[in-house]
Formats: sequence, C-alpha cells, structure tokens
Amino acid sequence: MPKIKVGILGATSYTGVELTRLLSFHAQAEIAFVSSQSYAGQPLSKEFPELSGICDMVLCSPDDAKLVAVDVVFSCLPHAVSAEHCLPFILKGTRIVDLSADFRIKDVAVYESWYKTKHPCPQYIKEAVYGLCEVAHDAIATAQIVASPGCYPTSILLPILPLLSDASTIITALIADSKSGVSGAGRTMKTTSLFAEAHDDLMAYSVGRTHRHVAEIEQELNTYASIPFTFSPHLIPMNRGMLSTLYISINKSAKECESIVKKHYEKEPFIRIRTSSDLPHTRYVVRTNYCDIAFTGEKSGQVIALSAIDNLGKGASGQALQSMNIMFGLQQREGLIR
Amino acid sequence: MPKIKVGILGATSYTGVELTRLLSFHAQAEIAFVSSQSYAGQPLSKEFPELSGICDMVLCSPDDAKLVAVDVVFSCLPHAVSAEHCLPFILKGTRIVDLSADFRIKDVAVYESWYKTKHPCPQYIKEAVYGLCEVAHDAIATAQIVASPGCYPTSILLPILPLLSDASTIITALIADSKSGVSGAGRTMKTTSLFAEAHDDLMAYSVGRTHRHVAEIEQELNTYASIPFTFSPHLIPMNRGMLSTLYISINKSAKECESIVKKHYEKEPFIRIRTSSDLPHTRYVVRTNYCDIAFTGEKSGQVIALSAIDNLGKGASGQALQSMNIMFGLQQREGLIR
Amino acid sequence: MPKIKVGILGATSYTGVELTRLLSFHAQAEIAFVSSQSYAGQPLSKEFPELSGICDMVLCSPDDAKLVAVDVVFSCLPHAVSAEHCLPFILKGTRIVDLSADFRIKDVAVYESWYKTKHPCPQYIKEAVYGLCEVAHDAIATAQIVASPGCYPTSILLPILPLLSDASTIITALIADSKSGVSGAGRTMKTTSLFAEAHDDLMAYSVGRTHRHVAEIEQELNTYASIPFTFSPHLIPMNRGMLSTLYISINKSAKECESIVKKHYEKEPFIRIRTSSDLPHTRYVVRTNYCDIAFTGEKSGQVIALSAIDNLGKGASGQALQSMNIMFGLQQREGLIR
Amino acid sequence: MPKIKVGILGATSYTGVELTRLLSFHAQAEIAFVSSQSYAGQPLSKEFPELSGICDMVLCSPDDAKLVAVDVVFSCLPHAVSAEHCLPFILKGTRIVDLSADFRIKDVAVYESWYKTKHPCPQYIKEAVYGLCEVAHDAIATAQIVASPGCYPTSILLPILPLLSDASTIITALIADSKSGVSGAGRTMKTTSLFAEAHDDLMAYSVGRTHRHVAEIEQELNTYASIPFTFSPHLIPMNRGMLSTLYISINKSAKECESIVKKHYEKEPFIRIRTSSDLPHTRYVVRTNYCDIAFTGEKSGQVIALSAIDNLGKGASGQALQSMNIMFGLQQREGLIR
Repeated sequence: MPKIKVGILGATSYTGVELTRLLSFHAQAEIAFVSSQSYAGQPLSKEFPELSGICDMVLCSPDDAKLVAVDVVFSCLPHAVSAEHCLPFILKGTRIVDLSADFRIKDVAVYESWYKTKHPCPQYIKEAVYGLCEVAHDAIATAQIVASPGCYPTSILLPILPLLSDASTIITALIADSKSGVSGAGRTMKTTSLFAEAHDDLMAYSVGRTHRHVAEIEQELNTYASIPFTFSPHLIPMNRGMLSTLYISINKSAKECESIVKKHYEKEPFIRIRTSSDLPHTRYVVRTNYCDIAFTGEKSGQVIALSAIDNLGKGASGQALQSMNIMFGLQQREGLIR
Repeated sequence: MPKIKVGILGATSYTGVELTRLLSFHAQAEIAFVSSQSYAGQPLSKEFPELSGICDMVLCSPDDAKLVAVDVVFSCLPHAVSAEHCLPFILKGTRIVDLSADFRIKDVAVYESWYKTKHPCPQYIKEAVYGLCEVAHDAIATAQIVASPGCYPTSILLPILPLLSDASTIITALIADSKSGVSGAGRTMKTTSLFAEAHDDLMAYSVGRTHRHVAEIEQELNTYASIPFTFSPHLIPMNRGMLSTLYISINKSAKECESIVKKHYEKEPFIRIRTSSDLPHTRYVVRTNYCDIAFTGEKSGQVIALSAIDNLGKGASGQALQSMNIMFGLQQREGLIR
Repeated sequence: MPKIKVGILGATSYTGVELTRLLSFHAQAEIAFVSSQSYAGQPLSKEFPELSGICDMVLCSPDDAKLVAVDVVFSCLPHAVSAEHCLPFILKGTRIVDLSADFRIKDVAVYESWYKTKHPCPQYIKEAVYGLCEVAHDAIATAQIVASPGCYPTSILLPILPLLSDASTIITALIADSKSGVSGAGRTMKTTSLFAEAHDDLMAYSVGRTHRHVAEIEQELNTYASIPFTFSPHLIPMNRGMLSTLYISINKSAKECESIVKKHYEKEPFIRIRTSSDLPHTRYVVRTNYCDIAFTGEKSGQVIALSAIDNLGKGASGQALQSMNIMFGLQQREGLIR
Repeated sequence: MPKIKVGILGATSYTGVELTRLLSFHAQAEIAFVSSQSYAGQPLSKEFPELSGICDMVLCSPDDAKLVAVDVVFSCLPHAVSAEHCLPFILKGTRIVDLSADFRIKDVAVYESWYKTKHPCPQYIKEAVYGLCEVAHDAIATAQIVASPGCYPTSILLPILPLLSDASTIITALIADSKSGVSGAGRTMKTTSLFAEAHDDLMAYSVGRTHRHVAEIEQELNTYASIPFTFSPHLIPMNRGMLSTLYISINKSAKECESIVKKHYEKEPFIRIRTSSDLPHTRYVVRTNYCDIAFTGEKSGQVIALSAIDNLGKGASGQALQSMNIMFGLQQREGLIR
C-alpha cells in the first residue's frame, strides 16, 4: 500500500514540530512538505535541532507548498491565516486537518465576534467536521475538512459529552477550572511567555467567559443541552500538560458518571478511566495521546471530574494525527502508541 | 524597650526555618531558643546552610526548651505533638502562636475525627483565638493562645469573610479550586514530594470534602452562615505560592464584591485588591506577607474571586509573626515588609 | 521469528520503568516478567499509573522471577544486590544486561574499595563486556553478560574514546564538568531529592575524584592511556538530561577533533555531531537514545567538548536496550527511534 | 540625617526592578525618580504588580529624569545607552553607579571591539572604579563613577583575586565553568528566553573566550598576573542564581586557598566560606547579597573552587547598592541583610 502523502503548513510552530515528529515515525505516512513563511529555505532541523536525523527536510514557502501533490494537509497556522492557506488545497479536493479555530465555529458571526477578523472562506465551514475523535469518529472518516479541537475543549468535552448523550442525565451547570502548561501559548514572543516571568508563577487569565475556547465548548455542549458554563483557564509553570477540574451540577453520582463514561469509551484506545484513589496526573499523559479521566465527589447534586491530556498531544497534534488515521481507514493507534 | 524573647519549637520544618529567618531580621524581637527533637545539639545552619551568618544558634531539645524564659513561643510542630509541647508553656502563662491545627478546631470531636488522634489538652481549645489577622485583630491582641490558620483557609477566608460580614450579602454555595506549591507538603519524606515525581506534574488530591483544612474553613464560614462548600486542592510544580480560585454563588456583582472587600480591608497593609485586568499571580506575593485578591465574572448570580498568597509566608510563618506583632502592640508590618 | 523473551529485575526503579516502557513498544521483544522485592503482587501500573494500558503486568518477586524462562534479563537493581540476583540466570546461561556497576569494574579490589561492599560473584566479572555500544559493538554481540555503562561515563567516554583511538592524538589532561537532572538520584528517599530542596537550586557534589563513576571512567580511559582526570558532577533542577563539558588538553584543534569523531561514528545512528554554532542542548536528546556532541575552543592545546544525553535514555535504559538489540542481531535502532 | 536621594535609570529591567525593591526598604535612601523610555507615564507597579504598595512611583522619561536633583544615579540601561544617559549627571557632579559594561573596560579599544559600538564618553572611563566591593572598598568610597561588575565576573573574581594578591601564590591556568539562571538574559524578547525553550533544558553558550564578560575578567586578573583563562557559561532552568566551578592550576592546596581567602575576607559581611562537605548551593544565596565560596580537590597542582551568588543580587543590584552604601559612608549591610 502506498504511503499517505502529507503536507504540513506552519511546521515551525510547537504543534507543527510535534506533528512532524509524530509523522516521521508513522509507518504508513510520509511527509511531502513542511512549509513556513518565515523560515522557508532552511532545514526545519536548523531551527529545531531536536529533529536532526529525524526530519531534515527543507521548509518551503506556503506558495511552493501549493504545488505539491498530497493526500492530506495539516495546518498549524494561526486562525484566519490558516483557512486562507488551506483554501487552494480545499479547491483541489485535498483532505484537510486544520488545527486552528477556523473551521470549528459553525456560526460565522460567532466566529467573527470571538476572533475579531473576517473569515476567509465561510462557505466551507458547514461541511467541516469538529474532530473530537472519540465522539465524531464516523463523520471524520468521510470528511474532507476536519476542524481539530482546541486543547481546553478536548479536556472538557471528553468527560462531559458522554454524560450528556445519556438520556437520563440532566446537567444544570458546569464550571471548568482548567490548568495548562506554558507551551499552549505558542512560540510567539510575549512577555508572559518568558521563562523569567512564567517560571515559579501561577495565574488565572481570561476568567469567566472571555477565553476564545468558550465559543467551541458552548457550541458542542449546546448540541445536547443549553448549560450555563463558566471557564477559568490558568497558566502552570510546566511545559506540557493540561488538567481540567470540572464541577458538574448533575442528577447522577460520581460512580454513575464513571460507569456511563467507561461504557461509552470502552473500545477507545486513548481514554483511560481512573478512580478517586488514582486521580489523573498530567505527568501520566504528557507525550502521549491519552486522556485520563476520573469522577469523584460525595455531595448530592455535584460531581467533580478530573481530565488530563497533553496540550500538544491529544490537545493538538496527537488528536490531529488520530483524525488522519480515521480518515484513511487506519487503526486509531497507528503512530500514536509508543 | 527590651526585645521580645521568642522561642521556636520545631525549627527544622520549612515553616520553622522561614520563621527563624523572619525573626532574625525583626528589630524588636530576639530568638531565645530554636528547638528540634531530631537535630538537637547541632547548629540550625548546619542542616539549613542558607541561615549561615543569619542564625547560627544551636538547636536545643524540646525538653531543654521548656527551661528557657521567653515571652512567646511559636510552634511549628505537627498536630498533636504541637499541643503537647505547648502545654508546659501554656501552664507558665507564656503566650503561644501555634502553626499546627491543634487549637484551630473548636469542637474537639470534629478535631479528633479529622485528625484521627486524641487532643492532648482539649481544655485550652476554647480560649484560643483563630488567628486570621485581618479578621481577628482585637481578639489576637489579648489572646494567650493564637491558632494560626492553615494556608488554604487563609487564601479562601480572606476574600470571603468580608462578604459574609456584609448584612445584605447572601452566598448560597462556594467552590474553592486551590493550587499550592510543593513546599506545602513539608520536609517529610514522601514519594509524591520527590523532585522527579512532582516536577513538571500537576494533580488534584483530596478532592471534594476530604482535605483536613475543610474542617477549619467550614467552622469559620459557619460563624456567618451555613454554606455548601466544595474544596479541591491541587499540587503545582513550584516551590512556594498558593492561588485559590473561588466560584461564589452570590447575590452581588464582582464590582460590588470588590467594593465591599476593599472597604473592609482599607487599613490593612497586607491586602492588595487587584482588578480583572490585573489578576493575582503567585509570583507577586511569594516571599511576602501579602494576600492579593481580585473579583471577576459577568454571569448573574456568580462571582469568581482569585486570591494569592505565599503558603509559607502569609499562609504560615508570615501570618504567625503578624499575630505576634499584634499581641505585643507592634505595627503589623514590623519585620514583614521588606 | 519468535519474540525475544525478556525479564526485568528491579522494574520499579526509574530505569526499570523507562526500560519497561521501551520494551512494551519493541516489535521483536516481549516482557516475560517484571520483578520487585517491595511491590511483588501488585500491577506495575498501580505504582506507575503512566504505564496503564501500556504494561499492566503484575510484579513478581525476584524468587519467582528465577523460575521464568527468558532469553535475556535486564537488571535495574542497585549494585551488589544486582549481581546476586543475576547469578541464578548466569548459571542457567541466560544473557544479562546489568545496569548496575557490578560487572563494570574489572579489578575486584577497585570495585570493593569504591562500592564498599563484597562482590557477590567476582568470577564472572572478567567475561562481562563494558557495554558502551558504539565502542564495544562486536564484543557485546557475543557476550553473555553486558555491564551497561553509567550515565556520566557514557556522556564523557563517547566523545573522548575516538580521540584516544586515533594514533596521532595525545591527551595530557581531562576535566569533566558534568551536569545531571535529578532523576539520576533514583527514587530513593533523600532530602536532597525533595522537590522543595532541588527545585530552583544548583549544586556541585562529589567534586574532584570522589564520585563512584570515576572508577569506570578511568578504567576505560586507561585502556588507551593514563590521563589525569578531574570530575565534577552537578545537580540541575530538571528531571532528565545530562550535559558534560569536557576541557581536553590535547595536541589537536577543535576542528580536527570533530573530524576524527565524526568519521569514527559515521555509521552510528545515535551519535549526532553538532558544531560550535549549534551546541548540544539536553532538550534535544531527552527521551531519545541520541548522544549529541560538539567540539569548540580556539585556544592552542585546549579543546572543549560538549556532550548531551538523556541520563535515563542513552545513559541507562536506552543504551541497555541498544545492547540487547546488538546481542540478538537486531538493528540498533529497533524500539529506540521513535 | 537627610536621606540619600536616588535616581534609577532603566527601572523596568529585571535589575532595575530588583534595585527599586531593595531601595524601597532601605532606611537611609529614598527614590527620587524611576525612569524608562518605553513605559514613561505609567506607574512602575503597573508593569510590575509585585511592586504594588512597595513602589507605586510613576516612571518618568530619561529626559525628565535629568531635571531631578539626586545624590546618586543608578543606571540599569544597556551598554552604550547607559553611558549616554549617565553623561548629563556626570557633568553635574552626581555620583553614578552604572550596572552596564560602559565604565568597566579601561581600554576603549578593547571595549569597542567586544561591544561592537562606539563609547559615548570615553573620557570618563579612566576615573571610574571597578566596583567589586570586597576588593575595591576604598576606591569606591571616593569615586564619582562606579562601574558595577557583571554577574559572571563577580562570581569568578571574588574567590580568585585574594589568591592572586597573596605573594606566594602562582596560578598558571584558570578554567571557569559557570552556570546561570535565565533571568541573566534580561527581559528582552529572545526565543531562547521563552519558558517553553529554556524550561527543562540545559545548554552551554559562548564557550571558550567569546562571552563579553571575558573582557572584564581578564582585565582584572591581569592587574595581578597574566593567566590563561577559559570561560564556559551555561544556562540553567531556574530563575535566579549563579554557580561558578573554577579549575585552578595553582601551587597551593585547597586547604591553603581556603585559609588565604578566609583571612582576606574575614571582616566582610557578604562572603561566607564553606567547606568541601558543605559546598555552595545557589538556593542558599538567592535573594541575598552573599557570595558563598568553597575550595576542594586533592590533586596536586589543581584546586577546584565553587562560588555561588544571586545573579540579580550580589551579581547586579545588590552589589550596586553595596557600592552606594560604601560611597555614602553607610554600613555595607544597610538594606541588604534581610
């Protein structure tokens, strides 16, 4: 069987590098191009020497990338830029896994209000599939465009959606207190991303309903029910890893929640259900595609869920690759269990 | 004026070392003894070389400590052991600032059920003052025994109690999602306290209502009103610092809360009220006695408070020293603003 | 081809866990037992939940381990204990990769003087091969017992031995200033391994000629020439990773050294030669089996070499697995490039 | 006695902020201005909220600063810019403590070759005093301009200069393997200063004789003797702290070195001589003005010195303040022991 030909737009972002590394060891895919506006003409491993001997391909410009024939394009570009660069590939019928927010938000007005920009190709939003793999497996399999979810939404939706899909469950409020490693801020220069500022510090930001990921979380929750949602992201002095602590006002006990979610995901290779005496740690999932989930709490009407992922793995590049596996009929685990 | 003579029991704990450092630079106090069961006979600065040239006193045994005449004793010993070693000083009429839980919980049965041990001198619990300085200033001034609050309770109660003391405020539920640096676990040998386990990791523990600090938080809340309380502590890969994110179901807006608390603390030197565009960071308060507080959230019926302290500073040794300042009629800031 | 049956003694050490993870994804090996004195009867993934779904085998006691038929045994036990537990397997003719120091030091008196213990089976030392893979490839292929090198020796010897094997090179002195992550200290309870002590700290230890690894480094250097050797290990506040800065008094330039070493290792998949404008970082090698090496310095008579490895990877479990690959005629990269 | 009026140029650098904090608690100084080109018009505590309640002064522009009458100006500006902005104050006769390199290098040609820029006022270099306080105490006392030393030079020269000033000592070579926390790189935006790049990483840079600090180290060494000098700085994943490991080819033993240096510094409050069983840690000196020094090594002809400072404390702002204390006849410890 010929290998899947893969192109990576925005390969010099942290998610781009992680994806390149994963794909370099994927038995059934081969990288056809890695592109970058700023570093075109240089080997990717010059800027990221950890890739020496793993991927020494020369970065091409996005313009040159368009000329390469590929089966699938991953975009690790920022929002708006991403849809614009995906467009030529969409027109050629190439399959797309977009890691930006561009194809996640179904309502263009909502997108444009949260992202403060005009959408470059709103006509393609509708057909795009929100690529939360364990939930949208079948739709991903046949999609041309997969909008790979954000890291916070992945960590929050994976424990919640199976509860909502259970007919007897009623959730009346949801608070997500989420904690992310610093790599989530990307490689852009910001004072708050400096080691001397972020190290040994802990802060909340965009508290309440002001973080952009709220848009996609509420959109996905609302496909089941309208639930008052509160979101407080925090920055943790570690590189990778994300933990969401979810306070769920619900008509079930922790044990019942655990049992519903366990059953729902029983065939899923990347969901590990833990217990209240063995709570998720980010250390257990970092550099993997696992999402570790536990339910706890003894108070009637309230269940606390803990959910841990690697923000660059399951929360970004790992999940994007998982989508590719599904799109091309491969085992979900291919290139991801190692 | 003669200096206040101070004794420190359990000086080789992290809180003991921090207290020793603070007292070494306090203009109106002098350390009369530092004691330790395990290290008696050695200079404190042998085990803690950072204190070389600052405090090179030789540690005495707790038995020898009893023979030293002091004006006040700080106990940094573990619960149960602490009350037992404070007892001889109490009987002599020496003033006590106890950093353990022993004199915090007014109901002996509650204490014994949470701490799984018999209280060594329950007869002294009643007269002890719960030493949250900004709230109990007057009672501390005349107390013989001050029970210095735990770190989590300090970070949670300081933003909440002024709201509760406002007659028009109704709080119907409180969730505290708290995050602490690793020094909070003390110097005891535990696998989870190893660098190779805690570094780059993030975890919740004792989630719900199972952490011992719940006892004193609920006791203090209940002096105002009975509020359903949920508590989830988390371990953060940093040494010092604590941030509590509080989800308050309340009949006030964030602005109103800010205004109540600001007014309440307007003369307090260690409370800094921040805003939603300038949220508390642990880095801003570490190695100080400050508690930084902000209120945010636009959802009707819900306010989110952020509260940052240094778990070893305002959350332990700093606050204990602040109590001493109050007990001896000194400025609260003495030896604490630097 | 049937898979290689592997046993792991001391599976609950950090090197044991890392080896178990690597072997779990090795296409041509299968784990027949994981053993532990302290945790026998429990699943390995109970104590190390990161292994859930990867290796959930139940730990057996070392006594039960002896009854299992395996092709090769890895020992991750401490010195002296290791040789003792390897002995029954040696007697059965099983191949051994020992990660302890027990079979590294050829002179029993030297071993016993450095390790302050009697060697349990000195008669097997002579036939054991010092398993620095890139140097001892052929001997490893046929060895029954491979003594896998220590982490510091690996990082120091890999850049130096090719220089010494060049006939025209004369080295008159060698200083190794080595820096290691904290995981090198293992999972044993030591105050210096606590997060609150090691985090944000930097220290030298065993400076000069007092660290045990000096014994094996000098032994291997002396097979070429007697070189005055100075060794200063340092503890760095990171989990994994090791960098050795080598000050070499030598009759070659940095460029000449680079060229000799590059040629020597040109077919080796795990050696990456870097340049003075692209110096090794530990981040580039952590969680890999690479050793990144660079030579620099313009001073006549002095070359500075930098050498980076993962102390738990190439410095321990990775290299041990590389030896197994060589012993069983597999590609060196098998299970190690990912 | 009226307080010393102090101005701070470049107050928004890390050294500026540290200096501002120190001066805010100094009993005999008061800050007359804090200036910044980029943040003029804002309160310093807006950009650095840790200073809220400590120093809420509004930053003025460097131009406005010139109009303020002060007794002493500290400059925390980058090289070249610093001398230029100090010049108006020099002309007015104001005393200057410059933390940049501008007045450190006596030979203008050497300065201009290392710093690749023209010196703005070379005529004032000669009279400036190199402010290594323990060595240049008397000259600092009467100087108009003090060139406060770099962090690496401070950590290297403090243990070495007393040896060189001993008539019977001969040093034939010196290698300094220095390790610095990331704050040393300042608040400038550089990819290598990002948390996601520097965290959990370890690297050497400017190895050999290429780091600018070589210029001032060799200048100061050469006032005693011409010694071949090798310098390898390393970046350590911690915020503050610096450790230099010095390999000294010398005709003395470690014990003799210890004794010479101990005697030399016996009256100095900020030098702590440690022993080979109690080596310096950066943790012991961070946020202090101490330099901890130890000598070790048993090899004839070679002594290894360890020297630890806080790069922002004794290596920058602490030492600059110490110079001010000396210039104004105060106790060296004033505002620095806390």
